[in-house]
Amino acid sequence: MIIIVKNHADKGQLDTLLQWLKGQGIQPNLSVGTQQTIVGCIGDVSHVDIDLIRALDVVESVQRIQEPYKNVNRKFHPADTVVDCSGVKVGGGAFQVMAGPCAVEDEEQLLTIARAVKAAGATMLRGGAFKPRTSPYSFQGLGAEGIKLLLKARQETGLPIVTEIMNVQHLPLFEDVDVIQVGARNMQNFELLKELGHSRKPILLKRGLANTLQELLMSAEYIMAGGNSNIMLCERGIRTFETSTRNTLDLNVVPLLHRLSHLPVVIDPSHATGHAWLVPPCAAAATAIGADALIIEVHNDPPHAMSDGVQSLTLAQFATTMAHVRQLRPLACHDR
Amino acid sequence: MIIIVKNHADKGQLDTLLQWLKGQGIQPNLSVGTQQTIVGCIGDVSHVDIDLIRALDVVESVQRIQEPYKNVNRKFHPADTVVDCSGVKVGGGAFQVMAGPCAVEDEEQLLTIARAVKAAGATMLRGGAFKPRTSPYSFQGLGAEGIKLLLKARQETGLPIVTEIMNVQHLPLFEDVDVIQVGARNMQNFELLKELGHSRKPILLKRGLANTLQELLMSAEYIMAGGNSNIMLCERGIRTFETSTRNTLDLNVVPLLHRLSHLPVVIDPSHATGHAWLVPPCAAAATAIGADALIIEVHNDPPHAMSDGVQSLTLAQFATTMAHVRQLRPLACHDR
Amino acid sequence: MIIIVKNHADKGQLDTLLQWLKGQGIQPNLSVGTQQTIVGCIGDVSHVDIDLIRALDVVESVQRIQEPYKNVNRKFHPADTVVDCSGVKVGGGAFQVMAGPCAVEDEEQLLTIARAVKAAGATMLRGGAFKPRTSPYSFQGLGAEGIKLLLKARQETGLPIVTEIMNVQHLPLFEDVDVIQVGARNMQNFELLKELGHSRKPILLKRGLANTLQELLMSAEYIMAGGNSNIMLCERGIRTFETSTRNTLDLNVVPLLHRLSHLPVVIDPSHATGHAWLVPPCAAAATAIGADALIIEVHNDPPHAMSDGVQSLTLAQFATTMAHVRQLRPLACHDR
Amino acid sequence: MIIIVKNHADKGQLDTLLQWLKGQGIQPNLSVGTQQTIVGCIGDVSHVDIDLIRALDVVESVQRIQEPYKNVNRKFHPADTVVDCSGVKVGGGAFQVMAGPCAVEDEEQLLTIARAVKAAGATMLRGGAFKPRTSPYSFQGLGAEGIKLLLKARQETGLPIVTEIMNVQHLPLFEDVDVIQVGARNMQNFELLKELGHSRKPILLKRGLANTLQELLMSAEYIMAGGNSNIMLCERGIRTFETSTRNTLDLNVVPLLHRLSHLPVVIDPSHATGHAWLVPPCAAAATAIGADALIIEVHNDPPHAMSDGVQSLTLAQFATTMAHVRQLRPLACHDR
Repeated sequence: MIIIVKNHADKGQLDTLLQWLKGQGIQPNLSVGTQQTIVGCIGDVSHVDIDLIRALDVVESVQRIQEPYKNVNRKFHPADTVVDCSGVKVGGGAFQVMAGPCAVEDEEQLLTIARAVKAAGATMLRGGAFKPRTSPYSFQGLGAEGIKLLLKARQETGLPIVTEIMNVQHLPLFEDVDVIQVGARNMQNFELLKELGHSRKPILLKRGLANTLQELLMSAEYIMAGGNSNIMLCERGIRTFETSTRNTLDLNVVPLLHRLSHLPVVIDPSHATGHAWLVPPCAAAATAIGADALIIEVHNDPPHAMSDGVQSLTLAQFATTMAHVRQLRPLACHDR
Repeated sequence: MIIIVKNHADKGQLDTLLQWLKGQGIQPNLSVGTQQTIVGCIGDVSHVDIDLIRALDVVESVQRIQEPYKNVNRKFHPADTVVDCSGVKVGGGAFQVMAGPCAVEDEEQLLTIARAVKAAGATMLRGGAFKPRTSPYSFQGLGAEGIKLLLKARQETGLPIVTEIMNVQHLPLFEDVDVIQVGARNMQNFELLKELGHSRKPILLKRGLANTLQELLMSAEYIMAGGNSNIMLCERGIRTFETSTRNTLDLNVVPLLHRLSHLPVVIDPSHATGHAWLVPPCAAAATAIGADALIIEVHNDPPHAMSDGVQSLTLAQFATTMAHVRQLRPLACHDR
Repeated sequence: MIIIVKNHADKGQLDTLLQWLKGQGIQPNLSVGTQQTIVGCIGDVSHVDIDLIRALDVVESVQRIQEPYKNVNRKFHPADTVVDCSGVKVGGGAFQVMAGPCAVEDEEQLLTIARAVKAAGATMLRGGAFKPRTSPYSFQGLGAEGIKLLLKARQETGLPIVTEIMNVQHLPLFEDVDVIQVGARNMQNFELLKELGHSRKPILLKRGLANTLQELLMSAEYIMAGGNSNIMLCERGIRTFETSTRNTLDLNVVPLLHRLSHLPVVIDPSHATGHAWLVPPCAAAATAIGADALIIEVHNDPPHAMSDGVQSLTLAQFATTMAHVRQLRPLACHDR
Repeated sequence: MIIIVKNHADKGQLDTLLQWLKGQGIQPNLSVGTQQTIVGCIGDVSHVDIDLIRALDVVESVQRIQEPYKNVNRKFHPADTVVDCSGVKVGGGAFQVMAGPCAVEDEEQLLTIARAVKAAGATMLRGGAFKPRTSPYSFQGLGAEGIKLLLKARQETGLPIVTEIMNVQHLPLFEDVDVIQVGARNMQNFELLKELGHSRKPILLKRGLANTLQELLMSAEYIMAGGNSNIMLCERGIRTFETSTRNTLDLNVVPLLHRLSHLPVVIDPSHATGHAWLVPPCAAAATAIGADALIIEVHNDPPHAMSDGVQSLTLAQFATTMAHVRQLRPLACHDR
């Protein structure tokens, strides 16, 4: 951390600043120039609230050199974290595909899809029971009943299940769920993150629509600060000025997150594009760049899906996509 | 709503579409051209999930003409909503200023500030008890204790209090609070919005950092759909590419929201800029353009505030700002 | 400027870096910590290409402390620049309004509008002769003929004229023009900026749709580096995710640019909103926050304008807006 | 195109609108509902300025159904355009790699790089003679001398050369250049585009930092409207809120542009990331998703490059990247 001191600061003020820093456990290193005085702060300052320093009278500006996150930081944990999702391992060189419907609609729909995605090579089953919808008038998911159907599908297919939580109070309903998803709109629902930190369940943490990677990692830090390191980071498209797609897939994140953090990176090409025909090429690119897993929306009858039909692959399209992805995987980048 | 039909659609498919629409209570109006067939859907379609139509096989694209929100729409409720905050009225021509510290720190701090902002002309007291912080290592607020101190400050000054909720489970703690704030990061925490819809308390709903006005209004619609129409919409700056300020104040929203909705509009120049010296000019602009209220962070000792010190006005700066704002208010735009 | 040195750097490499810096005329100041080595560079480094340093082997990262612009920087030129536009002064406490049609269409149209805006209080006449249009099939302006008509309108009304240049080769046509406008899409047309630096004409430099203030100031620096300091900075709305308006007016820029630079700041509420009904409230806010001038599109018959009819005020609307702005001006912020 | 008529419109006004449309060669199709009247406009309306209609008194809003571009539209030209760059074909199933330094620095540097990239498999040589720089104090390129050196390198290696134009007046200097590049900041320099439309040279048109695909295609339409269809569309990263990279690579564009247009699509992973270590994974992803060509910055001594050293591959890194890309290419998506 580097503190630029205001030009007019006198010695007394400067001393007070240095004392203040030492009181916070920071070792300051003073460089006095003719025009500018700089205080370099060496050591671990990830626990320091930089805004407190910024507000001080003699401080012109403050710049962090080191990341404000520690637990999720690869610097302090060089080995890949491998998240064990009831036997299916994500990270550390493995490659997994999570697939299933946007929303659980009924038993027959879910079982049909679950069997088909398993046959095509998916290793986990996704499906929404609680659905975050922009409109209060849209289908909100089957709720607790949806989770029961997912558990039934797991029993039949053996696929671990991934489903989204939207409310801290629903946590007891997720007791038998294999992976708990935190949606993009809840990425900074800090109360939810704190609660999930007390769990030991694998968490699929989605990046918000307009959040930086640092913010995503700080949200993961919230969970790890609570003691839960079973976290998968998920890119699901960001909001840009382009209006012909729902979102824009940001694949820079795969090598970037792999360098910044030891947590595995999952790519969701369905939400990132919003159009089924764009999912296979984006899944291919995500595989080539070295994603640890994909999460893809699949439906047995997309035109009549109760949500996200436009972006859902048919069972046949998913099988073709899986075949392509399997061919590409051996050529994927290994960026670590 | 206008549906563009795919070129290859045959009569059978088209009939199925028309039947499907009628089944949803929509009256379709067919325009068959030589190159393009268009179905115009007349009437109230705010309850229709447009994505369901978009997913249908014969549909090329769908465009809404009417807004997807109804309760918050001025078209269906031409008169201004006036939100009564324990006697202080927001909307309908009144002008209010909410002021106070970012976070409640202790009794003396809060009372000092409360008395001073009241003396300067503030009509409500703001203060955070539960603080959403990007880092798990930053000060998270005093919690329940903070709310008790706010109630004490209200008792002494008579100012109604505004404070933020972050967790559905905390709702019982807010029983005596006058206005419940939903922060920008929770604007699409739909579970929280649903719960607040069952309350009758005034809600200060902040716009998310990268959300459109339509999304803000859909979030307000969630609350109104539950029966609570005591909603104030708050602009607190949006994220842009500019890095010299924390956010960018979007003042277009004042006349826009006034036209789209009957709900009052509150401007927060503190978060919108992130720098105390930018707050007075932005408060002036917000007043001139016709905001119904301002919400401003004020601290008795900004350099030592436990959060947001950089953007907090001193007591003296706030008094000067109030004096300026009072001069400007009679010249404010009346856009309705 | 602060250089963070890579951890593995040995003494030889560090010495080479320090020599390199001295070769560039920079005085380095070394802080060696146990974990991190920092080189503080004191003095004027505005002429240094920071990317050259960033590319060096031993450099981890580089952060500027001082602005990369010098001529336009208020630190080196504390007094307001007053731009003399053929007798009409912009900046330094004066307040001006430029008004006129988006495009010059014909003599009668232009003279009608010019007379009306003068009567309402405008002090300069705007009008496009060369029009930048997204589509090659849209009206591209009258070109040289348009400039002739503007000169005629000036002769009759005495209002100095402002019109846009799009091509370096057109410069001879602008010899008698009072103010040359550089449009948002040409803000980083560096060849054009260099050429205008050799002129002494007042330049109205518009901010690009997605550019930072630093980039705007660097473009102004291009012009000043050539010797021309007659520059007005113009905010005309930025691109955001909001789709209900053409752009989003960013008023933070008025106090920000006034602090960073000595150049006057002009606000264009017409392009910033794209809707005539939003222009008066935004003009009011821009006046209150302390803009040095406004530039507003006015047309005698907006529904039949050849461009930008939707955002053009009628003659009557402009007169009302001027009356309001005149009332507000004495209460405007003085941020310097 | 669909026109929503204002509710209060009377029959006379509606008739005037219909006449106006017919006068523009548009065939209107009226749907009168009880609450809303809609005019569907069938046929080719790409030449219509939609804003003219939007400004009309009786018009509530207008929505395009068809694209506003025609020449570049795949609907009207289903076969891939193959751009012949002095014998090297881009598009139509071929795959090319353009490589070379950001800026031409001197003969030895250029020839060293040119020979090495050719040996590694590059099929074209890139190099900047005129450099657009944010700062007037940064190296601006060798200018005409740089083009001479590029021609010499072509003579020796046989690689066609790609170099950027920044000024219409420089066009004569580009007479022997094989491909003329239009940089991101000039994407909407319409005067330059018009001029290039009169040429028959291949144009590499880069997308602006915050431009939509429709805007990119409209800029290509400008060139094609002048008669030049030798256009390659180039994605070079867009500006997002992420600050850890220079830009964000948007790979959605590859399948999207292939569907919307018949023009080939080139990906620039160097500018899209700004860091050499991110270039190989992004090049891999771009290849997998089906890009027609890549353009990559390579330097023999990146730490001492005169520009863009941070993002330039070394000769060895480029060779490794080429080997990987060659393996991936047979598995690339064929999205047409």
